[in-house]
Amino acid sequence: MVYLDYSATTPVNKEVLDSFDKASLSYFANANSLHKLGYEARELMDAATKQVSDILNVKEKEIIFTSGASESNNLAIFGTINRYPNRGKHIITTKLEHSSIIEPLKYLEKNGYIIDYVSLNEDGSVNLEHLKNLLTKDTILVTICEVNSEIGIIQNVNEIGKIVKEYPTCYFHVDGTQACGKKKIDLSNIDMYSMSSHKIYGLKGIGLLVKKENVEISPIIMGGKSQTNYRSGTPALPLMVSYAKALKLMNNDLDDKLNKVTSLKEYLIKELNNISGISINSNDNCVPHIINISLLNIKPETMLHALEEEDIYISTKTACSSDGDYSDSVLALTNDLEKASTSIRISLSYLTTTSELDIFIKVFKEKLKELKELGE
Amino acid sequence: MVYLDYSATTPVNKEVLDSFDKASLSYFANANSLHKLGYEARELMDAATKQVSDILNVKEKEIIFTSGASESNNLAIFGTINRYPNRGKHIITTKLEHSSIIEPLKYLEKNGYIIDYVSLNEDGSVNLEHLKNLLTKDTILVTICEVNSEIGIIQNVNEIGKIVKEYPTCYFHVDGTQACGKKKIDLSNIDMYSMSSHKIYGLKGIGLLVKKENVEISPIIMGGKSQTNYRSGTPALPLMVSYAKALKLMNNDLDDKLNKVTSLKEYLIKELNNISGISINSNDNCVPHIINISLLNIKPETMLHALEEEDIYISTKTACSSDGDYSDSVLALTNDLEKASTSIRISLSYLTTTSELDIFIKVFKEKLKELKELGE
Repeated sequence: MVYLDYSATTPVNKEVLDSFDKASLSYFANANSLHKLGYEARELMDAATKQVSDILNVKEKEIIFTSGASESNNLAIFGTINRYPNRGKHIITTKLEHSSIIEPLKYLEKNGYIIDYVSLNEDGSVNLEHLKNLLTKDTILVTICEVNSEIGIIQNVNEIGKIVKEYPTCYFHVDGTQACGKKKIDLSNIDMYSMSSHKIYGLKGIGLLVKKENVEISPIIMGGKSQTNYRSGTPALPLMVSYAKALKLMNNDLDDKLNKVTSLKEYLIKELNNISGISINSNDNCVPHIINISLLNIKPETMLHALEEEDIYISTKTACSSDGDYSDSVLALTNDLEKASTSIRISLSYLTTTSELDIFIKVFKEKLKELKELGE
Repeated sequence: MVYLDYSATTPVNKEVLDSFDKASLSYFANANSLHKLGYEARELMDAATKQVSDILNVKEKEIIFTSGASESNNLAIFGTINRYPNRGKHIITTKLEHSSIIEPLKYLEKNGYIIDYVSLNEDGSVNLEHLKNLLTKDTILVTICEVNSEIGIIQNVNEIGKIVKEYPTCYFHVDGTQACGKKKIDLSNIDMYSMSSHKIYGLKGIGLLVKKENVEISPIIMGGKSQTNYRSGTPALPLMVSYAKALKLMNNDLDDKLNKVTSLKEYLIKELNNISGISINSNDNCVPHIINISLLNIKPETMLHALEEEDIYISTKTACSSDGDYSDSVLALTNDLEKASTSIRISLSYLTTTSELDIFIKVFKEKLKELKELGE
């Protein structure tokens, strides 16, 4: 098997699963219980929280565990607007966001909010001058992904954060789901930051929102105090412990892992450059883990299924392949509907090998030739 | 160890954990991915969903997996009111609900909704005549727990459902978190039903909301289509599979398990009846798993800690023991503030043994005597 869909999800690290199992069996009590077993569970939860906050260089109280990045993104958006119903009704975002950002914003647009999409430079980075022009005293939230999930475009969230800071009643939220483990992250100028465990060789069903101490939001899942006041429900302690482990492992030899993936990407790009009739959308302003290419006159789903016949797994943009579908991200970057309608994503890991890429390249070339000949 | 806090959370069944581990390792792909690995993950998700829907005697499309019962309760409430902003602003509930019902309703009360608490009969059951009187064409939601978590009071949700059905623009939501595994459940006359895995020897971080086909709600976690359109986020497949397993095990020999716990309760109640200076709050209209008693002039936290010294674990109402605290549920049932301020909960399982109860009774009597003498 050649798995090149690591940005969709990653295989779980055995050490992470072991930590989950151990916590499930040895610390089963409810961390909200008053008795000693509950207290021991809470101590373990606090230790996991501290480990996470140390890795992210934030305070323990700034960590809100959630069920995943989609919940974190919704919490950042609805938490802000529900907390401050009397602030302005203007939100700024980009055309490069995940559906768990876009759908909440579309919902808000129907309910009286104005959503502005900041324009992008040629390399996909946010046009900072346009951002400055869009910001007003009515802007309540700027929400921008640090790394786009389809093309891998990186945003300079540090610079963006400095600009947003000029507006004290505007929060800056960053969807960091695809950034974690793919670059070094620095949360200094960010108010809220969303993350997910299953993108970094952790388990599904756990994520977090970093919410800086001075940022106030309303919960979207209300109830009693739990791990924090911002998210109710019995703490999913074993998932939290496993997530702390996954983050610790993520940071181990991060430079080496990034260097390895950079080499793999260079190798792959060199080979792809030799193939005619395709267009490479990812550029130098992208993480090395994600390579997005457009097949031009071939349907991406057709290629996906042709590759899976040979046990090779990549992804297309859409889970729903109706004719009208295209990638918003690729369209935003290229302004080319054909490219946007025919894009595939190859996503790499430090676990990927050169020989896996060789297999991919060989089969991809063959399938491309076949499909072009078929006029597919 | 004598663990008598099963209603706070249960130890995980080893078979459930095994099914989680197996799914984590063998089906790691994203169930939303288009390729074969994703398809296989989706097939497993569909099979788990079917297993759950068969057990609950509902349709597959009526199962919405969530991160737990708190999310399910919030989804039922906010999902309804967000979906129908132009329906009436009247909600009916009881004084016996969990904080993940009460807090959302308090929030709505501050935002223009009228919340009515239906009165209770002497045994804690909902006064159906009062419910009929409260219901109007403006009532958008009736939300009532099938089994109260502190005292174990059972509501006849079937009868209540028939009454609510007379009002076609009113939904009937039932928090079934403490009912599952403690009685047979029948969802025929219920529009939405909340459940949690960790109360039935499953894992923490997974629950579900049954939402009948004809019931429409808005999601509270928005994004792309996932397991359903009502809850976004990468499907937490291993948690879902493990939850299906836990439900299957729950139903195995359910009658035998209920009979066993009924015998245990009778044994315990008989012993408790011989102890002077306490008051038993649980009655014949309660599940056998929960026995709530008031210590009258002893602080419940003091007893909890005295028992934990002997490795015996029970619970009090509150996680926060300030003087002003009392149990809303016990107050609603007894209308006695002293009883409500001094209540403890002993919760049983089919795993509980008579000899564990003997240890509890012996130590409880000793500690009670000591504390009464101390004038605590």
